[in-house]
Amino acid sequence: MSVFTFNIDARSKKPIYMQIYDYIRDEIRCGRLNPGDRLPSTRQLSVHLSVSRNTVDMAYGQLSAEGYIEALPKQGYYICDITHHIPVLHPSDRAEPAPAAPASAADRPVYYDFNPNGIDLEYFPYNIWKKTMKDILYNSGEDNLLLPGDPQGDLSLRQAVAEYLHQSRGVRCDASQVVIGAGTDFLLILLYQLLDKKNLYALEDPGYIQAWQVLAHMGAHTVSIPMDSSGIQMDALRRSKASVAYVMPSHHFPTGIVMPIRRRLELLSWAGQKPDRYIIEDDYDSEFRYRGRPIPSLQGIDPSGRVIYMGTFSKALTPAMRVGYMVLPPKLLARYRKDLSFYSNSVSRSEQKFLSLFIRNGQFERHLNRMRNVYKDKRDAILKAFQPYRPLFSVSGEDSGLHMLLHFHDGRSAAALIDQAASHGIRLYRVSDSHADPSSTSPFDEHIILGYAALPIDRLEEGIVRLLDIWFPS
Amino acid sequence: MSVFTFNIDARSKKPIYMQIYDYIRDEIRCGRLNPGDRLPSTRQLSVHLSVSRNTVDMAYGQLSAEGYIEALPKQGYYICDITHHIPVLHPSDRAEPAPAAPASAADRPVYYDFNPNGIDLEYFPYNIWKKTMKDILYNSGEDNLLLPGDPQGDLSLRQAVAEYLHQSRGVRCDASQVVIGAGTDFLLILLYQLLDKKNLYALEDPGYIQAWQVLAHMGAHTVSIPMDSSGIQMDALRRSKASVAYVMPSHHFPTGIVMPIRRRLELLSWAGQKPDRYIIEDDYDSEFRYRGRPIPSLQGIDPSGRVIYMGTFSKALTPAMRVGYMVLPPKLLARYRKDLSFYSNSVSRSEQKFLSLFIRNGQFERHLNRMRNVYKDKRDAILKAFQPYRPLFSVSGEDSGLHMLLHFHDGRSAAALIDQAASHGIRLYRVSDSHADPSSTSPFDEHIILGYAALPIDRLEEGIVRLLDIWFPS
Repeated sequence: MSVFTFNIDARSKKPIYMQIYDYIRDEIRCGRLNPGDRLPSTRQLSVHLSVSRNTVDMAYGQLSAEGYIEALPKQGYYICDITHHIPVLHPSDRAEPAPAAPASAADRPVYYDFNPNGIDLEYFPYNIWKKTMKDILYNSGEDNLLLPGDPQGDLSLRQAVAEYLHQSRGVRCDASQVVIGAGTDFLLILLYQLLDKKNLYALEDPGYIQAWQVLAHMGAHTVSIPMDSSGIQMDALRRSKASVAYVMPSHHFPTGIVMPIRRRLELLSWAGQKPDRYIIEDDYDSEFRYRGRPIPSLQGIDPSGRVIYMGTFSKALTPAMRVGYMVLPPKLLARYRKDLSFYSNSVSRSEQKFLSLFIRNGQFERHLNRMRNVYKDKRDAILKAFQPYRPLFSVSGEDSGLHMLLHFHDGRSAAALIDQAASHGIRLYRVSDSHADPSSTSPFDEHIILGYAALPIDRLEEGIVRLLDIWFPS
Repeated sequence: MSVFTFNIDARSKKPIYMQIYDYIRDEIRCGRLNPGDRLPSTRQLSVHLSVSRNTVDMAYGQLSAEGYIEALPKQGYYICDITHHIPVLHPSDRAEPAPAAPASAADRPVYYDFNPNGIDLEYFPYNIWKKTMKDILYNSGEDNLLLPGDPQGDLSLRQAVAEYLHQSRGVRCDASQVVIGAGTDFLLILLYQLLDKKNLYALEDPGYIQAWQVLAHMGAHTVSIPMDSSGIQMDALRRSKASVAYVMPSHHFPTGIVMPIRRRLELLSWAGQKPDRYIIEDDYDSEFRYRGRPIPSLQGIDPSGRVIYMGTFSKALTPAMRVGYMVLPPKLLARYRKDLSFYSNSVSRSEQKFLSLFIRNGQFERHLNRMRNVYKDKRDAILKAFQPYRPLFSVSGEDSGLHMLLHFHDGRSAAALIDQAASHGIRLYRVSDSHADPSSTSPFDEHIILGYAALPIDRLEEGIVRLLDIWFPS
């Protein structure tokens, strides 16, 4: 993707789409964009420039109409060769895009991206959001929105979160234990400050690289613990001398493992054996469970106040709203109030108010139910398409969350299969990218990560058919 | 203030004011609130319960109408003695509040609070905010608001901030150097991760305690550097072996010192003497300058890329919107992109969009101009009232920012004068509370901090007259 860096002038009388049009046209005219170059997708460019996709569509439409660029179906927009052409082209005169230079993996066009971090935003309750925000802005007491709020988060939101977590996740807490913050990264930073700096943090390997990055950049001592089929390996954890374990029991990323009750109890017992041992429960993907009942949180069965529960609205609602929450055990809550209450809350009051109302009105639950069905349909469609091939590979981690794992039994390596798909524009993800130490390996490295939340279901089905054609040519 | 901890049930059919009414009435009836107890102010309780002030007013109004409580002018609401009364009281029957127990300083009622952290929210551009947010919610491309944005902050906001800082503060930067984050604390946390952990951070003493707290809780090495009348003492800084200096040159808190150009150049020269020395310029209070031209930032005269500029919208707009910004020198920007771009931006997209539009439309500048006048009027009123007493005490730091300093020449101590005011319900602030080490002292400890932003001008004038009466009884 070419990187466009130019200033949109929002105060200009020239419409933004014309500014984009002018810029790209000039880049082509002066030869900085060359025939055959691929333009960023309208989505990419709209995100990059922070303008609406319609605006970019209009700019591209104009450029296309004037023959500066052309759209190749399912491939994207390419710069036309204007050096041999008069400004207005007849369709029959259009230049074929120049043969592309040998593309590196990063440059390859991607038509189907099975990114496990994506979510489906098509069903975002946009109208409820608009209406509720409008109500808040017009009808709340002004002071309420303009004054600095409670450093831990507004009481009404903390109450709503506590009730939701109790009902949906079996978390045992009251509002006083809830801390609201601008995303789980920020909450983990607070937690690092709350716990003893001498702690050794055990992180699942493979696991959530970002938690490892946050802790490492803070200067925390960390150790990687391998996974077995039940989750974090207890023997390795015990040997490690770690005092804090960061785990994702609901649907581990990337392995998709749901920690069984036996391992959960072992882990809790480990924590209870010494004072100041803690478990950070990152309840990743817990909102989405497709078979049987939701599995209650570790926190809910913790007898001794050693579990710090963390969650976020990023996956359930939108990553554009930076709101996470953690539930502190009483001992840490007292320490938080003593040491860290000087931090102002990092989430704006109006956003806290919105979430509080959204949960209390039952709209959040309705949204989750809806998304659970949307994601279940996608998951079911994939599993159905896979069915005839199931002797050749297996699937795991498919009953929860927004991604599943594929493992092949025919001797082909995950890396080769992922590369093969990539060369046809289908992006899948490697477990090996989730090792804190890039040189380390694990038996899970031969699993392929397939995230299915973001693609619309028709594109998803199409992509899966293509993928199976590529992997199993008839 | 009694602490009320009860759950408001937003889904109840009972209006919230009636829930508050019921709770307080029951507390009185069962004797948990006693005759003569003072209730929290309507403002305090509305903040505490996250309800509008009107709601609390209605609850208190009802309780008052029914004789459970009574309002004493300029003192607050007190519990009536209902044990000897029938439920509906005649005004003549009202109990005098019971004599209060000897009050500790913290319990004393405060009628005039000259808090230097307050701002005037009466002039907040509430209608523009409502209208702009509505436009954003209804007319923006949806993707724009729901997709995760640029980790550094949306380009349009960064462009707007860069332009504002260039024009208003002489900061030399482009949008690529700006990092948006949920408040300066969070940005300081990012900065700590960006800089070498071995750095020794020099902090002004007295100074901004919160920066010291953030750094200390992160595990950073810190050292306090005394202040002289030009700001941070250069000799002490040089001797300290510090590699990073955190300074507030525009209007130092709490001393009100504006760092003169000579000290600025000395500080820049110190930074330039060794690689990896940096200055964190906290441009505190820089929006408000009442005499002469605004003083350009240190960053703008830095020849060697050693100044990290930080600012926030908390004081200029509202502390309820958690948005700060920092400008990284090119070397640190490269390191940020390499090491820290895994952090998602901590500010919601819609809020970034609002600020971007608010700045670009010129509304931010108009708001600042208006607030500068509002604050200048308050400052002028105080200086005028002080005029006749000026042989007895002097004023400093009054040409910038939202607080000034008083120092007495008649031998009375700041502590005694502050206590004397407090016993009459007037709260002033101590410089000595701004020492990182509470046991340390400085010549500035004999200055009294008087913040004047939050009080409405009539209340302010009233409070100043009373204060002068207390200090200089005729």
